[in-house]
Amino acid sequence: MKKKHGLELKPIGIIHSPYKNRRIPPYLGYKSEEISQIEVFKEFEEGLKDIEGFSHIIVIYWFHKSQGYHLLTKTPWDDSLHGLFTTRSPHRPCPLGLTLVELVAREKNILKVKGLDAIDGTPLLDIKPYIPAIDERSVIKLGWLEGKLGKERN
Amino acid sequence: MKKKHGLELKPIGIIHSPYKNRRIPPYLGYKSEEISQIEVFKEFEEGLKDIEGFSHIIVIYWFHKSQGYHLLTKTPWDDSLHGLFTTRSPHRPCPLGLTLVELVAREKNILKVKGLDAIDGTPLLDIKPYIPAIDERSVIKLGWLEGKLGKERN
Repeated sequence: MKKKHGLELKPIGIIHSPYKNRRIPPYLGYKSEEISQIEVFKEFEEGLKDIEGFSHIIVIYWFHKSQGYHLLTKTPWDDSLHGLFTTRSPHRPCPLGLTLVELVAREKNILKVKGLDAIDGTPLLDIKPYIPAIDERSVIKLGWLEGKLGKERN
Repeated sequence: MKKKHGLELKPIGIIHSPYKNRRIPPYLGYKSEEISQIEVFKEFEEGLKDIEGFSHIIVIYWFHKSQGYHLLTKTPWDDSLHGLFTTRSPHRPCPLGLTLVELVAREKNILKVKGLDAIDGTPLLDIKPYIPAIDERSVIKLGWLEGKLGKERN
């Protein structure tokens, strides 16, 4: 049993990505076929036992290039200012990134994944199994994003 | 533009929940009809602009009662030891909780939500809009969890 203290995060790995800076990743990665490599540090490798049985995982990471935030922000989808917490902007009070990815292959402590929009060198914080029964809902209202997906300006 | 430093997290709010200790919350909350109140601190309220337009949001929080972890762990679903990162155990190197919830109502800086399995007093770290186009997949493989959901032992 290893102890934890305070609200301080210690990364469990690092993300190796084809995206070398923050202007390059596709918005939200959801259309991307690019492969990223998630390196889980050796000391945590045992926690990956049987993960290759899962086709999709949730990756939580630190937006390490984020340097601040605005509570109202613009997005790629329109010219309006939106409440920050109604967007997936990387510039947040707690700069935590969250992406659902396809687990393509595992080699020891390296996970090859598709659809990850994190940039190269991003600190990895957590990996969780994607479980549709709890992670999926029939959505009724999408707020200001309604009808906008797939219509990015850039 | 407010500055951020290091991998240190500053909560943006606090969760008021009917679950007073960590033995009570339903596993993963996905069947729960209980209402929890998410209090977003006043200084962040502007970031909630128009969030009431969304029926579902992703809540990220700190497992503040988590005091350590094992890389192999048991779950409510069977007696086997599983790789920690193939489970949703709260006992993790980075004790970050993640729950998709239904946004039932908003009153200023208070969000009333259904399906949140966090215990009372949990520090709130982030809120993101739930966007099926990126947060949902047709899953092929569920690993050791295959066929187990809905069959919890407890």
